[in-house]
Amino acid sequence: MEQFVFFGGKGGVGKTTVSCAYALKCAEAGLDTLVVSTDPAHSTADVFDQAFDDDPTAVEGRERLWAMEIDPDEEVERHMGEIRRRMNEQVSAAIVNEIDRQIELAHRTPGAYEAALFDRFIEVMRTADDYDRVVFDTSPTGGTLRLLALPDFLEGWIERLVAKRTKSVDLFEKAAVGDREARRKLDEDPLIAHLQGRKERFEFAGRTLRDESAFFLVVNPDELSIRETERAVAEMAEQDLGVEGLVVNRVTPAPDEDEQGRGATWLRDRVATERERIDEIRRAFDEPVVAEIESRVREVKGDLLAAVADELAIDADAGSVEA
Amino acid sequence: MEQFVFFGGKGGVGKTTVSCAYALKCAEAGLDTLVVSTDPAHSTADVFDQAFDDDPTAVEGRERLWAMEIDPDEEVERHMGEIRRRMNEQVSAAIVNEIDRQIELAHRTPGAYEAALFDRFIEVMRTADDYDRVVFDTSPTGGTLRLLALPDFLEGWIERLVAKRTKSVDLFEKAAVGDREARRKLDEDPLIAHLQGRKERFEFAGRTLRDESAFFLVVNPDELSIRETERAVAEMAEQDLGVEGLVVNRVTPAPDEDEQGRGATWLRDRVATERERIDEIRRAFDEPVVAEIESRVREVKGDLLAAVADELAIDADAGSVEA
Repeated sequence: MEQFVFFGGKGGVGKTTVSCAYALKCAEAGLDTLVVSTDPAHSTADVFDQAFDDDPTAVEGRERLWAMEIDPDEEVERHMGEIRRRMNEQVSAAIVNEIDRQIELAHRTPGAYEAALFDRFIEVMRTADDYDRVVFDTSPTGGTLRLLALPDFLEGWIERLVAKRTKSVDLFEKAAVGDREARRKLDEDPLIAHLQGRKERFEFAGRTLRDESAFFLVVNPDELSIRETERAVAEMAEQDLGVEGLVVNRVTPAPDEDEQGRGATWLRDRVATERERIDEIRRAFDEPVVAEIESRVREVKGDLLAAVADELAIDADAGSVEA
Repeated sequence: MEQFVFFGGKGGVGKTTVSCAYALKCAEAGLDTLVVSTDPAHSTADVFDQAFDDDPTAVEGRERLWAMEIDPDEEVERHMGEIRRRMNEQVSAAIVNEIDRQIELAHRTPGAYEAALFDRFIEVMRTADDYDRVVFDTSPTGGTLRLLALPDFLEGWIERLVAKRTKSVDLFEKAAVGDREARRKLDEDPLIAHLQGRKERFEFAGRTLRDESAFFLVVNPDELSIRETERAVAEMAEQDLGVEGLVVNRVTPAPDEDEQGRGATWLRDRVATERERIDEIRRAFDEPVVAEIESRVREVKGDLLAAVADELAIDADAGSVEA
């Protein structure tokens, strides 16, 4: 049974709705479930009509369901603060200002959001022992997935650094026979310890994502969304991550059979086009379609959420596709 | 008259369709127009049913209309190649391997895409003299917008670097009276020249985006899209970039007045919900709504594109809202 379930897909396809519906389904099946939202628009708050923050909070009126919202802006600030604190411990006061400027510069680059968010994901995964199921309303893509290759890079970097420092220590000991102070310092080297820590975090992330996580992609029945989904599947495959199934969301409902008029004609044509796209999805992907969810007239919240949950053929117990 | 027009908005709202429709409108008004697409799904190719690449190519069957597609993957590769080449000219062969690893590491971070794309945007803006109008199907957001603050950071960095090197040269000249060689070297310093070049590029980008560009945001009539648009307007305002107008896309058509049945009921409720959202958009934003574009039954291409272009109340001549 996978503890972590991710619903990926491009902005606007309905990831948050599907994630909240699946989390509700898990909770109602008796699992202690946490839904983690990273949507800057904080739509989890809309779905449950309740404010959430960075700490898991029980969803009112639901049993065994908790939610938290991660704010990318706050994560970047927190990230900068931590690096600053660690640097200040390790360097002389004279260059603190210079380093502050460099840290701020680094956090102005695009991607600082994604990196900080991914760090927070890892943190949530490490400390999620209280929950049977953790549902994320997004899934690592492009740049973030490439971070999973970091351990190999860091490994080489650490090895070369350790080799250089060991050589220095050897020379020092030859000069000052019997003095083991330098070797002790090497064992405690804060930079090497930090790199080692990073490497282990990303190794943990890679392992957890590969062995204890299930990924679903949310797709809309239009060409653009299909193309983007193909791309996402390929990007994930590059990192040995498989996709469990596809959730087709925003499917237009059909009119009555005998219905006539501008509206019925439009709907009928639209339904026919979407039917072609859904057939294409079933043909083009090896991954099964685990739900076709109809567009609702209003935003999905309250009782509508339970209705959407019923349409998801994803087994709450196994985090996998229902037989 | 702004030469550059950007259509921003989250994924899936229909930026490429609106951009291509507006570019067509400009071309038909007699302007030599280039549409620049950065969509990894390359939907410009679908809209015009023609393949495009990194070089502007005439759109078949249309006058005065060119299109190009920028591939973020290729841009990252090109970016890495350039940095490598420059580094290899400046450093000893012994550390080239180490630098290669560092460059590759840097390009594995999230955001490398956005940074490389923005560089390419600047390049397009610098060399677009042949076109009266250049239309981008995306607009800088979050991380990329923060790059506009780079010139100030680089300025301080360059100043400190020049001061340090000048001091070294002064000392050198005191020791070797009359030898001006070191001072000449300082004037030609490749690192300082490179930083200076970066600074000027980003200054050019900031100036061009602020003074010669018009920004429109594409929004769908739902709460999530409205919230995301508010966020985008605020992010742009932080960098002194104003939004000219909002394009409401994917508006559901109404059924006939006397139409009855499941389809008519669904459409009527849906239209009513969207009407509330559009009223909210008109209330919540200072920026005018310059178009309400109905959802089409099929993907917008061919003749449909001209129909959509007609619905855009954006003046082709002025790149601003029609009176």
